[in-house]
Amino acid sequence: MAQDLSRFFEPRSIAILGVSRGEVRFGGASFLSYIRQSRYAGRVYPIHPQAEEIQGVKAYGDLKALPEVPDLAIVSVPAAHVPGVLGQCADAGVRHVHILTAGFGETGTVSGRRLEESVAAIARERGLLVIGPNCMGAYCPRSGLTLWGAVPGEDGPVGVVGQSGAVLQRLTEHLGSLGLGVGKAASIGNATVLDATDWLAFMAEDPGIRVLALYVEGAGNPRRFHHLAREVCRRKPVILLKGGESPAGAATASSHTGRMAGGHGLWDAACRQGGLVMVRDMDEWADAILAFSLLPAPAGPGVFLVGGGGGHSVIHADACVREGLEVPPLSRASMEALRRSVPRAGSIVGNPLDHWLTFADPAVMGQMLDLAGADSNVHMVMADRLIGRKAFHMPEMPDPTPGTIEAVKGCPERKPTVFTVDSDGGDPALAAQGAAVRASFCRAGIPAFPSVPRAARALAHLWRYHRRFAT
Amino acid sequence: MAQDLSRFFEPRSIAILGVSRGEVRFGGASFLSYIRQSRYAGRVYPIHPQAEEIQGVKAYGDLKALPEVPDLAIVSVPAAHVPGVLGQCADAGVRHVHILTAGFGETGTVSGRRLEESVAAIARERGLLVIGPNCMGAYCPRSGLTLWGAVPGEDGPVGVVGQSGAVLQRLTEHLGSLGLGVGKAASIGNATVLDATDWLAFMAEDPGIRVLALYVEGAGNPRRFHHLAREVCRRKPVILLKGGESPAGAATASSHTGRMAGGHGLWDAACRQGGLVMVRDMDEWADAILAFSLLPAPAGPGVFLVGGGGGHSVIHADACVREGLEVPPLSRASMEALRRSVPRAGSIVGNPLDHWLTFADPAVMGQMLDLAGADSNVHMVMADRLIGRKAFHMPEMPDPTPGTIEAVKGCPERKPTVFTVDSDGGDPALAAQGAAVRASFCRAGIPAFPSVPRAARALAHLWRYHRRFAT
Repeated sequence: MAQDLSRFFEPRSIAILGVSRGEVRFGGASFLSYIRQSRYAGRVYPIHPQAEEIQGVKAYGDLKALPEVPDLAIVSVPAAHVPGVLGQCADAGVRHVHILTAGFGETGTVSGRRLEESVAAIARERGLLVIGPNCMGAYCPRSGLTLWGAVPGEDGPVGVVGQSGAVLQRLTEHLGSLGLGVGKAASIGNATVLDATDWLAFMAEDPGIRVLALYVEGAGNPRRFHHLAREVCRRKPVILLKGGESPAGAATASSHTGRMAGGHGLWDAACRQGGLVMVRDMDEWADAILAFSLLPAPAGPGVFLVGGGGGHSVIHADACVREGLEVPPLSRASMEALRRSVPRAGSIVGNPLDHWLTFADPAVMGQMLDLAGADSNVHMVMADRLIGRKAFHMPEMPDPTPGTIEAVKGCPERKPTVFTVDSDGGDPALAAQGAAVRASFCRAGIPAFPSVPRAARALAHLWRYHRRFAT
Repeated sequence: MAQDLSRFFEPRSIAILGVSRGEVRFGGASFLSYIRQSRYAGRVYPIHPQAEEIQGVKAYGDLKALPEVPDLAIVSVPAAHVPGVLGQCADAGVRHVHILTAGFGETGTVSGRRLEESVAAIARERGLLVIGPNCMGAYCPRSGLTLWGAVPGEDGPVGVVGQSGAVLQRLTEHLGSLGLGVGKAASIGNATVLDATDWLAFMAEDPGIRVLALYVEGAGNPRRFHHLAREVCRRKPVILLKGGESPAGAATASSHTGRMAGGHGLWDAACRQGGLVMVRDMDEWADAILAFSLLPAPAGPGVFLVGGGGGHSVIHADACVREGLEVPPLSRASMEALRRSVPRAGSIVGNPLDHWLTFADPAVMGQMLDLAGADSNVHMVMADRLIGRKAFHMPEMPDPTPGTIEAVKGCPERKPTVFTVDSDGGDPALAAQGAAVRASFCRAGIPAFPSVPRAARALAHLWRYHRRFAT
């Protein structure tokens, strides 16, 4: 069913049409510059009517002058010239085209809409596969094609499709900074020829992609999208950020990608019925992707909350329950074990567990994970990883993070386990420390979140998805 | 009506009962240590039956041996001895007592409840004012009494009352790192003698406190609390984090401060009817406090969203509307001005405004604020302050934050204006930069938040409060 779009991600050669000789800021020239900086190992051909070379790369007068038919053409000529250039691509035997250029249906003008219609017609008649127009195109670290993200660009299990280059850039960098690689991403803009459904269909068949993340403003045929998404998410989680829920958002979407983003109620209902994971903002999106990428299925909604501080225990339990999780009583055996081992003063034995040593002593954390593993009331563990705030007068001590990671990984009966590391506020040193600790956990395969409410929401998504699609 | 509790915050002398000579970790000895490190200028008297001095401070055998009647006694003796020590305090003429010791009603034991009842009875009979038991007591930077927070400890307009020392420590440090001072805070623990209502009544009368923040697990007399809070919040915003909404949270609250935290539905309804600002977690609490402390009343719910990126504009508009704000069309005059000044390529003119120069050029940001000031559809401004992510291939440029702050402060018709600075993920350098930029804005009196949804929620609280209590 799905079209093979792999050549977009792994082109052996790329021609760039519409690349200026002057200052490198936007358009084809910037893409040429990125390709030269990236690890892309294929051949690159700037096309220019006069230039002998651009940025030190040999240039060609037109596509027919090239020594081969390029796998991919990146088109950055002015919008009015795009139909003509598409014809040239077809004439030269190019099949995969990325149209970077904007100025089509999203302008809201008759001429823009007509131009976009002609792009669609030419692609249909000549059998072109087109990503765009008005988009950043494909991203694929394995082939060094990380044109729109000078991020570490590691390969990984996440596949992203979206109608906003900036949103996808931000997501890719966010996940990359936590050590989670995006294996393939497609910024599809107006999605005139290949739409979100086509890209979803392709990614769904990709064995390297385990988790699908979508940012959609509108689909050409919503019914087709929902039909496919419903089928895909039985096999792989589809985490959807749908833009245009509000009238102001929908109007902006129309000016952004020319898509009618209205009918949010219908979208929302169809997606939920279909089992898609619906998120509302960038942070919730990234958090859910992290949880789905790193965690196995929980067997139930019961979270064991491990941390310290009576007030925080109360607030954290409330947050978990509010998100649809449960904070169940521990088994009798667990309670007896805790009563034996937890010092009475300044602690609360139960779930949540208020036990300050879990912050500082990896061995104690390991005991709690063993206890959770053996307790059938518990299905997940959420541990608060306090970092040294000035307000707590905490003594200097060695960073317990490496030992804690070992304790988690060494737990034989480990249930889905996450950490929360709060470093909010305006203290740069604390913020840096929090980011580093979260990254350490995530790179070790253990999700870490900046707050309990965010962790709880991510786990609730995970639990609901697996409850529905339990095998 | 309100009792004068100011001596708790500005004691001229403090006696500490239950201070060990050994290692300084908990209890009275740690408080003595903090007082010595803090800027507290009053006199300190450790009480010890044998010691001549403790931590280099002259010690006394009992309260009667002191050269004066201390303004405040901090009691850290074992729970069983507390009633006796309270009697000694009363005999010596001490009126203000802070009971640090835990082990009362929160233990759930008959003996613990009886001990707590005897504390209440002695206080009533002997006319003692008691903070606690089971709490960290008072915090007041102006008098150097920042015992439970080695935070910068600046004076400020925020008053905090709460039943968790750790929660209050974390809040105080969070706000302090953004340059927002907590003028007075009271960690009141079991709140046996003076309860949340008494502390609220006192802070409500304090002319230095403009914004009240409460963390409450339970009040001895909820009806009295709601009656007072309803009256207070006509004069000052009362921002309430209520612990124990969930059964698991309520059970933990009972083990934490001995309070029955149930009946959340009634609490919630009474608080909302009364006009309290109800928040759900630490971040929302801090965000709302920031907005209420720094911003004037908005005249309506209309937000002008200034930033860049079409997808982000869509998502940000959705987030504002979801929180109850509006993202109205701009006036015809504003639209004409924008069409003249905003480059067409890569921008979207409207609300949200997608205009990348607002990130980089303070003068352009100033123009947008002037435009918002003159546009009667707009009541607030939320500007996205992008910091240089690797994914955006942004050129090195001077930090626009100082110029942007000047532009905001120099805007003659400024409406309530906030910035959002996203630095989420696991990159320590980005996280540090984000925290520093947010702190710069906040220290200049301009709230800055880590995300648009958080900013939107804070502004929605602000708008609803002022709509209700408009003068």
